[in-house]
Amino acid sequence: MNAIIIAVGSELLTPARIDTNSLFLTEKLNQLGVEVVQKMIIGDDRKRLESAISFAQGSADLIVLTGGLGPTEDDLTRECVAAATGRGLGLDKEILAALESRFQALGRKMAENNKRQAYVLEGADVLPNGRGTAPGQWLMMPSRQVLILLPGPPGELKPMVEQSVLPALRSILPPLHIATLQFRLTGMGESDVDALIAPVYKQYDNPVTTILAKAGDIQLHLRARSETAAEAERLCAEVGDQIRPLLGNKIYSTDGAPLEEVIGRLLIERQQTIAVAESLTAGMLGARFAAVPGASQWFNGGFLTYNNEQKHNLLGVETWTLADHGAVSEAVALQMALGARSKTRSTYAVSLTGYAGPDGGSEAHPVGTVFIGIAGPSGAKALRFRYPSGDRDRVRQFAVQGALNLVRLELSSQ
Amino acid sequence: MNAIIIAVGSELLTPARIDTNSLFLTEKLNQLGVEVVQKMIIGDDRKRLESAISFAQGSADLIVLTGGLGPTEDDLTRECVAAATGRGLGLDKEILAALESRFQALGRKMAENNKRQAYVLEGADVLPNGRGTAPGQWLMMPSRQVLILLPGPPGELKPMVEQSVLPALRSILPPLHIATLQFRLTGMGESDVDALIAPVYKQYDNPVTTILAKAGDIQLHLRARSETAAEAERLCAEVGDQIRPLLGNKIYSTDGAPLEEVIGRLLIERQQTIAVAESLTAGMLGARFAAVPGASQWFNGGFLTYNNEQKHNLLGVETWTLADHGAVSEAVALQMALGARSKTRSTYAVSLTGYAGPDGGSEAHPVGTVFIGIAGPSGAKALRFRYPSGDRDRVRQFAVQGALNLVRLELSSQ
Repeated sequence: MNAIIIAVGSELLTPARIDTNSLFLTEKLNQLGVEVVQKMIIGDDRKRLESAISFAQGSADLIVLTGGLGPTEDDLTRECVAAATGRGLGLDKEILAALESRFQALGRKMAENNKRQAYVLEGADVLPNGRGTAPGQWLMMPSRQVLILLPGPPGELKPMVEQSVLPALRSILPPLHIATLQFRLTGMGESDVDALIAPVYKQYDNPVTTILAKAGDIQLHLRARSETAAEAERLCAEVGDQIRPLLGNKIYSTDGAPLEEVIGRLLIERQQTIAVAESLTAGMLGARFAAVPGASQWFNGGFLTYNNEQKHNLLGVETWTLADHGAVSEAVALQMALGARSKTRSTYAVSLTGYAGPDGGSEAHPVGTVFIGIAGPSGAKALRFRYPSGDRDRVRQFAVQGALNLVRLELSSQ
Repeated sequence: MNAIIIAVGSELLTPARIDTNSLFLTEKLNQLGVEVVQKMIIGDDRKRLESAISFAQGSADLIVLTGGLGPTEDDLTRECVAAATGRGLGLDKEILAALESRFQALGRKMAENNKRQAYVLEGADVLPNGRGTAPGQWLMMPSRQVLILLPGPPGELKPMVEQSVLPALRSILPPLHIATLQFRLTGMGESDVDALIAPVYKQYDNPVTTILAKAGDIQLHLRARSETAAEAERLCAEVGDQIRPLLGNKIYSTDGAPLEEVIGRLLIERQQTIAVAESLTAGMLGARFAAVPGASQWFNGGFLTYNNEQKHNLLGVETWTLADHGAVSEAVALQMALGARSKTRSTYAVSLTGYAGPDGGSEAHPVGTVFIGIAGPSGAKALRFRYPSGDRDRVRQFAVQGALNLVRLELSSQ
C-alpha cells in the first residue's frame, strides 16, 4: 500500500512554519509497510484543496489529510473531501451532543460555527478526539481506497493515530516485516560511492537503497520488506553482502554511530585518550568529540591556536618552522600534534591547520588545503588534504571529518 | 504571481528528513510579492514526478523545483521537466568542460555519470553553481509560466537563488517595495519577548512581524510592503520605534549580524583580542568566533579542558580549588579565564564550565548549571547561569550564547 499525506493550512505556507505531522505519520505508516510516495501542503483554499485531493485519488491507495477540521470558515477539509469523492455530509447528532456537553462542562456557550465539526462524510467512520473538539474520519471507498481526515494539532493527531488509525489500517493490511541495514562511510564522494554500488543495488527493488550525503559523510540505508522477518533479513543481507566488500574500510559503522562515537568506543576499549590542536576549525573537532555522551572517559581537550604566536606559545611549534614552512604545512601540523599530545599527556593527539578561505592560501597550497597531523604511541605523521573551496564553513566541516577519519584509520590499524 | 514549490528526493519522504529549502524560498519569494500556494514533496520516481510537474503547471505561474539535479540515476528532475513541458534536453559543452576542469583541479577523474549534470532543457537559461557541480536552470514557457530547477543542498541552492533567481524574477515582476527591520536579541525567552511587544505589533497588518527563536537567540523581523520605498520604510519605522525601547540592551544588532560578529567589530575597533577556555562546550565557542571571516584579527584561540587534569595542567587552575569547589564552580570559571588570558596574552578571555547532562550535577548545581567567567584589563568575574536541562546539546548552545552575551555586555560597558 502507498500513501499521500496532505497537510492543510495557510500557516504551513509561511517562511517560519513547517509540516512536522508528516514525519510522525511516515514513521508509523512505514512500520506497517505503507510507503509514503508524496506529500502536499496546501493553504485554506477550496479550489486548490479539492483539486489536490482529486490528484491524490488518482495516485495512491491511502490519502491522509491533516488539518482543516476546526470550526472556522477556513476549515475546509470536510467539504473538499466531500466534493472530491462525491459524498454528502450529514450532521452527526452524537458528535453534536458531545460538542455541546463539552462546552457546557467548560461553562461556555458553544458558538454556532462549532457545529461544522459535527458533519460527517457519508459512509465514513468517526475517529474520536480525546484532546480536542474536531473528530477525525475514516472513509473507505468502494475501490478500497482509504481517505483519513485528521486534526492538525499534533497533540490531537498523535493519540488519534495510535488509538484509531493504526488498528484500522492493520486490520486491512497483509502482515509485513521490515529489515534495515545501514552503512556509514567517509573518504569518498557521493558520486563515486554511487558509481561503485549502483550496479549492485539497481538490480533490486527490494530492499530499497537510499544514499544520504553531507560534507565528507555518507549514509547508505537498505530497507527490505517481506511477509516473514527471516526473508526481509535475507533480502537485506543479500544486497549488503555485495556492497560491503566494494566499500571496504571506507565503512566506519553499521549501527548508525557517527565517526566520533566509533573513535570513542575504540579508545574506551583500549583505555586510551585523545586531545586536539585546532587551527582553522577552532573547536569544531573538539565539539564533535564532546557531543558523544561519556566523552570525558577518553577526550581530554586540547588547544585552539588561531595564529602563529599561539601555535608557538601553547604548542611549542618552533618559530623557524613557522617561518620556513608557513603555518599551513606538514611540518607545523606535525609539531602541533606532538605538542598537544605531550602537553595533555594523551595517548593520541590530532591537529588541523589549513586555509578555509575566502582569503589566504598560496600557489602551492590554495584555499581548501588542510594538513592533518596525528601523534600517537608509534610516532607521528601529517597528511595533506584538498577540499572543494568556496564555502568557508564547508571546508572546515570536511577538514573535521577528514581528521576524524584519520584517527579512526590509525586506531583500526593498531 | 503565485508559486508552487516541488522538493524532489526520496530521502525527503523518510521519517527523519524534512524539506527546509522551501522555507528559505518562501521568504525570498514573499519579499518579491510572490505567494506560495502549495508545496509538494516527491520521491525519485519518474512517473510521479512528471505527473506532479504537470499538475503544478495547471495551477501556478511559477514552479520552483529543488533537488534531483545530481549525477546519479536517481536524479530525475531534468528529464521529468523535459517530459512534462515537451522540451528536449541538450548536452551543454560549457558546463561539461567546467565539470571536467573542476574534477581535474581536485586531482580526481570525473565519473561518467557526472555528465548527466551538463544536460540543459531546450530554451532554458543556465544558473551557475559556485558551490557544487550541478547548475540550475530557468525556463520561461511561451505562456510566460516559469519553471526553475535548483540543486537540493542548501549551501548550493541559497547562493544560486540570491545571485541568479531573484534578479531574474525581479526583472519580470511589477515593482513592489519592501522595507525590513531586524532586531537580534538575547537574554530573554521567546514568550517573554512576545508578551512585551505583542501589544504593539498586533495593531498592524503591515508591517508583518515575525519572531524566530533558537537556543538563547531571538530574531525579530518586521516587513512592510508598499508601492513606494518611502512609505514602506515609514511603516517599518513606525512599529520599530515603539518596539526598540521595550527591548533596550537585550538588542545586540539591527543589521542581522550574529553576536560573535558584533563582538569582533568591537574588538577590531579597539585593537583588542580574545581567547577562550572551554569545558562543557569543548570548542563550540571557539568555532563560533572562527566562523566570522577575518576573525584572526581579534581571536587568538584558547584551551579545551575537558577534565580536572587539563584545567590544572593547561590553565593553571589550582588543584585545591578543583577539590574544594568542584570543577563546576565560580572559582574554577574565574581561574580558567585568568589562565587563558595570561597564557595567550589576550586582552580578554572567556571561560565555560558546567553540567550539560544527562548525568552529573549536584543538588546545589543541577544539570543545566553553567559558570561563565570573563577576565579583562579591569579584572575578572564569573557568573552562574541556569539553563533548561534535558537536551545535552541545547544546554551547550545556551551556554555559548550566554558567554557571547557576557562578552558583549562587558565590551559595551567599557
